Amino acid sequence: MRVEVIHGPNLNLLGSRQPEIYGSESLEEINASLVALGRTLDVDVRCHQSNHEGALIDLVQQAGRESDFLIINPGGFTHTSIALRDAIIACGLPAIEVHLSNLHAREPERQVTRIGGVVRGRIEGLGAEGYRLALRYAAALAGEKKS
Amino acid sequence: MRVEVIHGPNLNLLGSRQPEIYGSESLEEINASLVALGRTLDVDVRCHQSNHEGALIDLVQQAGRESDFLIINPGGFTHTSIALRDAIIACGLPAIEVHLSNLHAREPERQVTRIGGVVRGRIEGLGAEGYRLALRYAAALAGEKKS
Amino acid sequence: MRVEVIHGPNLNLLGSRQPEIYGSESLEEINASLVALGRTLDVDVRCHQSNHEGALIDLVQQAGRESDFLIINPGGFTHTSIALRDAIIACGLPAIEVHLSNLHAREPERQVTRIGGVVRGRIEGLGAEGYRLALRYAAALAGEKKS
Amino acid sequence: MRVEVIHGPNLNLLGSRQPEIYGSESLEEINASLVALGRTLDVDVRCHQSNHEGALIDLVQQAGRESDFLIINPGGFTHTSIALRDAIIACGLPAIEVHLSNLHAREPERQVTRIGGVVRGRIEGLGAEGYRLALRYAAALAGEKKS
Amino acid sequence: MRVEVIHGPNLNLLGSRQPEIYGSESLEEINASLVALGRTLDVDVRCHQSNHEGALIDLVQQAGRESDFLIINPGGFTHTSIALRDAIIACGLPAIEVHLSNLHAREPERQVTRIGGVVRGRIEGLGAEGYRLALRYAAALAGEKKS
Amino acid sequence: MRVEVIHGPNLNLLGSRQPEIYGSESLEEINASLVALGRTLDVDVRCHQSNHEGALIDLVQQAGRESDFLIINPGGFTHTSIALRDAIIACGLPAIEVHLSNLHAREPERQVTRIGGVVRGRIEGLGAEGYRLALRYAAALAGEKKS
Amino acid sequence: MRVEVIHGPNLNLLGSRQPEIYGSESLEEINASLVALGRTLDVDVRCHQSNHEGALIDLVQQAGRESDFLIINPGGFTHTSIALRDAIIACGLPAIEVHLSNLHAREPERQVTRIGGVVRGRIEGLGAEGYRLALRYAAALAGEKKS
Amino acid sequence: MRVEVIHGPNLNLLGSRQPEIYGSESLEEINASLVALGRTLDVDVRCHQSNHEGALIDLVQQAGRESDFLIINPGGFTHTSIALRDAIIACGLPAIEVHLSNLHAREPERQVTRIGGVVRGRIEGLGAEGYRLALRYAAALAGEKKS
Amino acid sequence: MRVEVIHGPNLNLLGSRQPEIYGSESLEEINASLVALGRTLDVDVRCHQSNHEGALIDLVQQAGRESDFLIINPGGFTHTSIALRDAIIACGLPAIEVHLSNLHAREPERQVTRIGGVVRGRIEGLGAEGYRLALRYAAALAGEKKS
Amino acid sequence: MRVEVIHGPNLNLLGSRQPEIYGSESLEEINASLVALGRTLDVDVRCHQSNHEGALIDLVQQAGRESDFLIINPGGFTHTSIALRDAIIACGLPAIEVHLSNLHAREPERQVTRIGGVVRGRIEGLGAEGYRLALRYAAALAGEKKS
Amino acid sequence: MRVEVIHGPNLNLLGSRQPEIYGSESLEEINASLVALGRTLDVDVRCHQSNHEGALIDLVQQAGRESDFLIINPGGFTHTSIALRDAIIACGLPAIEVHLSNLHAREPERQVTRIGGVVRGRIEGLGAEGYRLALRYAAALAGEKKS
Amino acid sequence: MRVEVIHGPNLNLLGSRQPEIYGSESLEEINASLVALGRTLDVDVRCHQSNHEGALIDLVQQAGRESDFLIINPGGFTHTSIALRDAIIACGLPAIEVHLSNLHAREPERQVTRIGGVVRGRIEGLGAEGYRLALRYAAALAGEKKS
Repeated sequence: MRVEVIHGPNLNLLGSRQPEIYGSESLEEINASLVALGRTLDVDVRCHQSNHEGALIDLVQQAGRESDFLIINPGGFTHTSIALRDAIIACGLPAIEVHLSNLHAREPERQVTRIGGVVRGRIEGLGAEGYRLALRYAAALAGEKKS
Repeated sequence: MRVEVIHGPNLNLLGSRQPEIYGSESLEEINASLVALGRTLDVDVRCHQSNHEGALIDLVQQAGRESDFLIINPGGFTHTSIALRDAIIACGLPAIEVHLSNLHAREPERQVTRIGGVVRGRIEGLGAEGYRLALRYAAALAGEKKS
Repeated sequence: MRVEVIHGPNLNLLGSRQPEIYGSESLEEINASLVALGRTLDVDVRCHQSNHEGALIDLVQQAGRESDFLIINPGGFTHTSIALRDAIIACGLPAIEVHLSNLHAREPERQVTRIGGVVRGRIEGLGAEGYRLALRYAAALAGEKKS
Repeated sequence: MRVEVIHGPNLNLLGSRQPEIYGSESLEEINASLVALGRTLDVDVRCHQSNHEGALIDLVQQAGRESDFLIINPGGFTHTSIALRDAIIACGLPAIEVHLSNLHAREPERQVTRIGGVVRGRIEGLGAEGYRLALRYAAALAGEKKS
Repeated sequence: MRVEVIHGPNLNLLGSRQPEIYGSESLEEINASLVALGRTLDVDVRCHQSNHEGALIDLVQQAGRESDFLIINPGGFTHTSIALRDAIIACGLPAIEVHLSNLHAREPERQVTRIGGVVRGRIEGLGAEGYRLALRYAAALAGEKKS
Repeated sequence: MRVEVIHGPNLNLLGSRQPEIYGSESLEEINASLVALGRTLDVDVRCHQSNHEGALIDLVQQAGRESDFLIINPGGFTHTSIALRDAIIACGLPAIEVHLSNLHAREPERQVTRIGGVVRGRIEGLGAEGYRLALRYAAALAGEKKS
Repeated sequence: MRVEVIHGPNLNLLGSRQPEIYGSESLEEINASLVALGRTLDVDVRCHQSNHEGALIDLVQQAGRESDFLIINPGGFTHTSIALRDAIIACGLPAIEVHLSNLHAREPERQVTRIGGVVRGRIEGLGAEGYRLALRYAAALAGEKKS
Repeated sequence: MRVEVIHGPNLNLLGSRQPEIYGSESLEEINASLVALGRTLDVDVRCHQSNHEGALIDLVQQAGRESDFLIINPGGFTHTSIALRDAIIACGLPAIEVHLSNLHAREPERQVTRIGGVVRGRIEGLGAEGYRLALRYAAALAGEKKS
Repeated sequence: MRVEVIHGPNLNLLGSRQPEIYGSESLEEINASLVALGRTLDVDVRCHQSNHEGALIDLVQQAGRESDFLIINPGGFTHTSIALRDAIIACGLPAIEVHLSNLHAREPERQVTRIGGVVRGRIEGLGAEGYRLALRYAAALAGEKKS
Repeated sequence: MRVEVIHGPNLNLLGSRQPEIYGSESLEEINASLVALGRTLDVDVRCHQSNHEGALIDLVQQAGRESDFLIINPGGFTHTSIALRDAIIACGLPAIEVHLSNLHAREPERQVTRIGGVVRGRIEGLGAEGYRLALRYAAALAGEKKS
Repeated sequence: MRVEVIHGPNLNLLGSRQPEIYGSESLEEINASLVALGRTLDVDVRCHQSNHEGALIDLVQQAGRESDFLIINPGGFTHTSIALRDAIIACGLPAIEVHLSNLHAREPERQVTRIGGVVRGRIEGLGAEGYRLALRYAAALAGEKKS
Repeated sequence: MRVEVIHGPNLNLLGSRQPEIYGSESLEEINASLVALGRTLDVDVRCHQSNHEGALIDLVQQAGRESDFLIINPGGFTHTSIALRDAIIACGLPAIEVHLSNLHAREPERQVTRIGGVVRGRIEGLGAEGYRLALRYAAALAGEKKS
């Protein structure tokens, strides 16, 4: 099984950007922990980041052709991008939307999600642990399908 | 570490109620799997269900006195109960709100949450697996604190 | 055929509470007239009242296990209770929502109904007669099914 | 006692138009059943249909001069016509608004009613049976007045 | 100079319909007083009433071809008819919208006007006197143009 | 009979301020024409203007003690002043709100009126003529009361 | 193949009414060009116009019985008529909604369409050419079905 | 004179729950001070608390039968409970709604009150002193009635 | 201790203005009772009234320099004045907003308060007694500080 | 004459992406048919696609320098991109917005268009045929200009 | 060139009022720095402050007669005063609206500006420096006109 | 001191694009004037433009690492981009948002700013001069810090 992890705008700054909100782990550390956990779960994990909405759409389209599961943190595009939502619908993969912080405890405009209605599930507010829980879910799903 | 799991209205019907939305596991089976997983994680898990908003408030207050972590699926009260929200604030525990289905893909009134702003995080749409991921998070948190 | 009639909060005060709006028949008189009419229509009628939302949910769940048709006046919970709505969906019975007064001629918040979208039909503004018309509908439906 | 039954736009198509929503009885059959039921209840029933808002207003004004009770299904004008509402107020008759389908379970714009606030009561979602229950109510009212 | 006076739906009932709101003058009496006042002001006055939106549009189009000024009380269509508004724009006449009652002191939906933005002016709340003041304005305007 | 005419903020600039909207008559000319017309109608007319909301409230209170009828153009306070509205209610006089331009054909915020609901009637869009029509109405009302 | 072309209120004024918005072709000229184009495409074209909403509903119902395709410009009823929308649903024909001007570049209330959700497609802003493009689409559709 | 004091959900936690908002007096201390003050004012004070909406409705109904005045702090139900509001209307007692904190200085959803429109007055933001001022008002009212 | 009492627009009319809403005590009587009560509580009370928003702002600024506590009934400015709110913030005094009537039982625009968020507490609906309760609160506060 | 055809995000997936909504023609096939039709109409057609909002803005700016007419399907950016709208205004070309599906029959957020107000016309719901009709319109326009 | 600087309500408190928001320069110091800077730029600067909306309107009208440029900080009236906006339109001067703090980073009601639409430009959030930048702009504009 | 100036989408067209709104200076001329002014103020100015939201985010992130102050005109992304807002927060620089035109005098959707709440200040409507005033502010700030 292959899982694609896609990080949206400004997530390349993790660790230095408002650590009281986003935590002190860097993106590299998070990605490394996901690849490592993937190995124990027999899942091939691939990670990407971009600040470009169009590049994220390209990545989601590519995931649709090459992977089995999508974990995506759309960052600030969560709240505005219908084009990204369309790409997720079109790629046809089961997907989990992950957010490091609890959006429901922040500004009202962060409580509007364009993405939430087209993924299988959402995890928010659990920090970098949220990505790892999403990966466990993907692995469990793969297990069910095999059996 | 003790974790309190509180299920809200109509969740006693799990397994028979709209299984295409809520899955085919019964509440008893979910609770049993949580207790079992708790044992492997060295966590004492206690489960409750009620259709009464007041009873749920009583349970949250009691959890605040006797437990270390709260996992709550407020069911239909998610969208309406400020009193339950106040109880969660008052109890002072870190909490995760769990929903079996992806509320963001359902009716608009299910996308209003009174609870979301006062918990640490939220997991939705991952079925009964969502409870188990929440329990893993609680255990990881306990591990961090000890170290 | 068994029909469950469930009255919500404050309906125990009927007859004395604002009779210019709710009429002068007491709840006991209404219930007695329904049981009597049920006998002439060969329908077994059972009546309940509670001021407790949770108790109403319990009653609707029980009706789903023991009855064939639900007549419900959710009183003030009409406008606020998603938990009660979920119970009506889950019980699986055909249902009619009855209101003594015409909600559309009253305050705006009484024109929001959480229940209206999950019942088969609604009768409002026809006083206690509304319950009896609902019972006639239930009996007619039973007649159709037999034939 | 005379009861005027007025059907609004597109109801002339009943029986062939979307029978899964509106039922398979034709308008002629419904009207005939109302006249027949009227005879058993000692009520003179007169039925009309028009696709023209102005013609419906003319009919309501005429009913105010010649009848004792109004049963009206304003069809699509329910949601838009203040002029028709004004006519119902001006005619001075007790009135019941009937809808074949449960508007609360349909599109949002069908949940706005311009008419609901000026009638005595409303019956919706009970199919053609709704008209017959309304007629029973009118007859019961006449009975009360006589006594 | 010719002035066209057009009355909308339910205004044929004036005098008998809710006289506490609409006054006790009948439409015939109002029209007669306008024709009489017109004579003293050297204005030819023509009056029409219809309950049909389409007929009112026809009348406004005809006024555009045959008259110099339009006085219109669109009744309940005031609040809903964009088609009537389009006709008033298209007819090209200066127009005054008259209402017997003060719409701003009534229900909220009567405070929405589709017509108000395309007339020269509006008179409301001054009863039948409002028509006569509008006629005086038309006559004064004609006087200005001649001079 | 005494009629008080009260002009609100910026109306002292009439004649020079945006004449394409407000006309070319100065406030002095309008007031003079009202006094003159008052003489022919046997009405004592008194005119005031202020840019101060508090001064306008003082004037309305004084009118309530000394006059029989109020003609008021609240200018920009029309859309915002509840305090002025309260003064008009409290003064107890029949009142007409006059606007030189047709507010319904202008910006949306000019279509909100705090004053409209507490006056007897409104005249808008008829320029300075609107004041004179309001005065005629006041005189006619006085005539009715005498007879 | 027969195509019904139905024009709504005020479209009888085309050519003289606001030509900067609606163009200088008269309705007769547009209809003639459609009939002529229909002949080259082997399509029988029938054209109608009315200012009466009820008459338009009658025409749509008739088209449902006698034609294969509907081209409709509902004029001002576009924004308000649920009754006309219901008729289009009920007639069962594939339909195109045509507007001469680009509604999205005009007033906000023209951007609400009651009709748009029940037709196959919409063409707006392309003037009278819009009708001819719609007719070409109808002919192409007929061609596909035959082959 | 008897005064019923009813405290809603989570108020049993007073003293320990967010003392910077709700003060450091416990509910027992507040109740004791009210009983003591009642004695000096010749008023019989009875105090209750519940986390259950239905229990609060029962208590209000009972107060209507047994007491002369109602002091109620509905806690989180203030913002959501139409059923509780109906009970207050039905009980027929003069009532004061008390809140410890100033709701207008807190989150927007706390500024919606379902209860405020059916009580005689409201005191908010004055801490436990608010209850005592309400009791003084009740006593003064009783004094007026006697005299 | 000195307490400043500031009354806003139209409160000079108390006693004669709508006594069914505002009571029959005149402003002079209320002020006298406050001064008298102040003496018994060892508080120096000073009272002011103005219909001018700017004068009220001047008074609040002066209170900030010369007094210890502010009791203010902003009348109609409650709902509109951000400038007055800014003055209350800037003066730095603890303040209570008093209203004679229960605003929550009146028109919707009276339920918007610009002032409520910047005062310590609010008393509404208790008539002139509301001022006296506010004064008692101020005195109690002074007592606490001394001790 | 040169016509620029610009396709927005996810349109590169046409044919495989939700064919029940978007049809089974691939983007290459559509583009080829446009070039071929262009030849018969003596129009030079150039086609582009990008998932990048910025790249689309670059393309529109380039079209403004090199082409005579713009046909654009902005995909998901239709509903959000003011930057793209600004580019279309700035390029100065007559433009048609094309959508394969009827947006008015889909989710509410697809019924908001940022682009609609700045193009000459819009065609939606007619599948790939919509592009070809737009091209015919462009050619007809060129014909008019020449003559 | 003469520039009029007008400060609205509560700005007389600058320096002492919430210095963390409004800075520690007093109004006198700001005014002195503007006069001094004016001298170096060959501009005659005149400064005014009032807490009275009417007085501000009088000042703006006077500026229209005697000055060439208006710099205005309307304070709390920014968000509410249409009368002040009308005065700025009527005075005919180019104007800049200055705010010491960044309104977009404060409460929502401070983000509504009645003034913003009628001035040439706006500077906010740059403290007292904002006034000086506005003055530089005025001087640059005067320079352009001369050349 | 180094100041980064970042221009958003379509600003590369300045000079030719709608000069009545945006002025006739080209972007190159503006940038050159900023560099020149920077030299006189002892500030190193660097200028960038992109139509790509992602590229702008990259530039802001780079500014956070290499510069002391940010001047940004986000163009059409002002109103929609939360991702760009997040980048500005994350970069940690003091920033000024500049707009050539006065957004408050344009379309409503241009009055929504996603950026305004996270910058220190805003200058709008002063044309290219706005950039130069912003640069003066930056230099003044640097001066303060040194002293």
